[in-house]
Amino acid sequence: MAQNNTITFFDLTMAHGATTSPFVWSTKFALKHKGFDLDVVPGGFTGILDRTGGVTERLPAIVDDGRFVLDSWGIVEYLDATYPDRPLLIPHPGVASLARAVDAWFWRMIVGPWMRCFCADYRDLCFEQDKAYVTHSREIMVGMRLEEKQAGREDRLPQISAELEPLRIALRETPWLGGDAPNYADYRIIGPFLFLASVATIPPLAEDDPVRDWVERVRALFGGLGHHPGLFPLWGLRRREGDPELFAPQGQGGIHKRNTGPESTRAETRRITEGMTQD
Amino acid sequence: MAQNNTITFFDLTMAHGATTSPFVWSTKFALKHKGFDLDVVPGGFTGILDRTGGVTERLPAIVDDGRFVLDSWGIVEYLDATYPDRPLLIPHPGVASLARAVDAWFWRMIVGPWMRCFCADYRDLCFEQDKAYVTHSREIMVGMRLEEKQAGREDRLPQISAELEPLRIALRETPWLGGDAPNYADYRIIGPFLFLASVATIPPLAEDDPVRDWVERVRALFGGLGHHPGLFPLWGLRRREGDPELFAPQGQGGIHKRNTGPESTRAETRRITEGMTQD
Repeated sequence: MAQNNTITFFDLTMAHGATTSPFVWSTKFALKHKGFDLDVVPGGFTGILDRTGGVTERLPAIVDDGRFVLDSWGIVEYLDATYPDRPLLIPHPGVASLARAVDAWFWRMIVGPWMRCFCADYRDLCFEQDKAYVTHSREIMVGMRLEEKQAGREDRLPQISAELEPLRIALRETPWLGGDAPNYADYRIIGPFLFLASVATIPPLAEDDPVRDWVERVRALFGGLGHHPGLFPLWGLRRREGDPELFAPQGQGGIHKRNTGPESTRAETRRITEGMTQD
Repeated sequence: MAQNNTITFFDLTMAHGATTSPFVWSTKFALKHKGFDLDVVPGGFTGILDRTGGVTERLPAIVDDGRFVLDSWGIVEYLDATYPDRPLLIPHPGVASLARAVDAWFWRMIVGPWMRCFCADYRDLCFEQDKAYVTHSREIMVGMRLEEKQAGREDRLPQISAELEPLRIALRETPWLGGDAPNYADYRIIGPFLFLASVATIPPLAEDDPVRDWVERVRALFGGLGHHPGLFPLWGLRRREGDPELFAPQGQGGIHKRNTGPESTRAETRRITEGMTQD
């Protein structure tokens, strides 16, 4: 059991001091949800193998009473299995399956595109000793110079914002992805928003984005764990002429509106039958 | 309580007799999960208001001992609240939030595009008396003639298949979206696959698609509830030259692979650091 209620946590930050890795962010929230204090080992992208004594090249990683635990999902499973009497991160096995589906959608449609909008900033903001590795590895990942990949992001950010709609819809009827209370589903998805805040030198989302309420409520948990002076503002993207809508109008109809009888569907029925001759 | 364990279920079928509405399919599975027998009221797209005595223009709808219950989510909540001792459809509130996110992604990226690939078949397969309404309403929805919208689908189906990756990733580590056992998350997502089977005059997915195992296991539940002689084969799409990969190679690395130590990340590290000079 964690001595003095403390778990060793390997951080992965930018030069400004805020965590950048989405998975490391999610893990930090997970450890706090279980009620632990963190003994933070600071650091950037390079030297992880040295810092962890050869145990891993990638973070997150934790040490609990001398025992290394790796991998964001691996850590979550370890914490719930080892400390089942503390609040569960995954209170039902279906939460893990569905969170993986949501996470996979989120990376494919949102997080990957965000990363490509800020990949040169990402390099510029990292520690001096990380710049060669970050430049080299990310240029291989994106297939071109980071400045080229990042260019034109003003034209891409509005569409990425529009693609967040599934998250907005999920949060219309419940305050947390976890339902009545936050769980690892919330922490898993907040991770990439906080990665974004660690690199977003221009605001990627609108001031009045409906997802803002949830993002800020998650950031405020555990004494404001999702805040750090190094982070950039997420809110302030403005829609320009010709841009797509940044988010769907609230109270919209369609398949995600509930049918409570003919009054609730009349407007749509009128629209799709207008001009139709009755036999 | 349902007399003789039976609930009245308003079906929405094609002329071939198989259910077509995704939400009606999901509801049928939900009622069977709760262990009910169905008293099926057959029918197509028109006349729903008459069949339900003016209660609703849209399905699903059920009647339990004289009480009408509307809306796919409304029915699920009613069934779990009224019959809490039968297997729960939503065993944790987070399952509902996350299933809504997955469902919203699925409709946006997959189901809407599938519908546009089969919208003329959809009209051709419905009951004679439904054709005028389906043609008129769907042409308003898609903004052009149904034949025009459907045209070129051979070029679109491969990309839609590729977009299913989040579902394939979710099902890599657990047999059901519900975790160890199916719940409403599985039924919610199988609904649109069975809609697709009700209209897919050409196969929309590959024979060896990794999602096939889950789809067929859900269809086999409750004595093969997801089978009907009117349904078309889902599997048989062939990748043509120039098409995207229909699904990602299995055992792929990347962010959805678990880190178990340096051996598990060495290949990726080698790839992204190749040619880098060591200082």
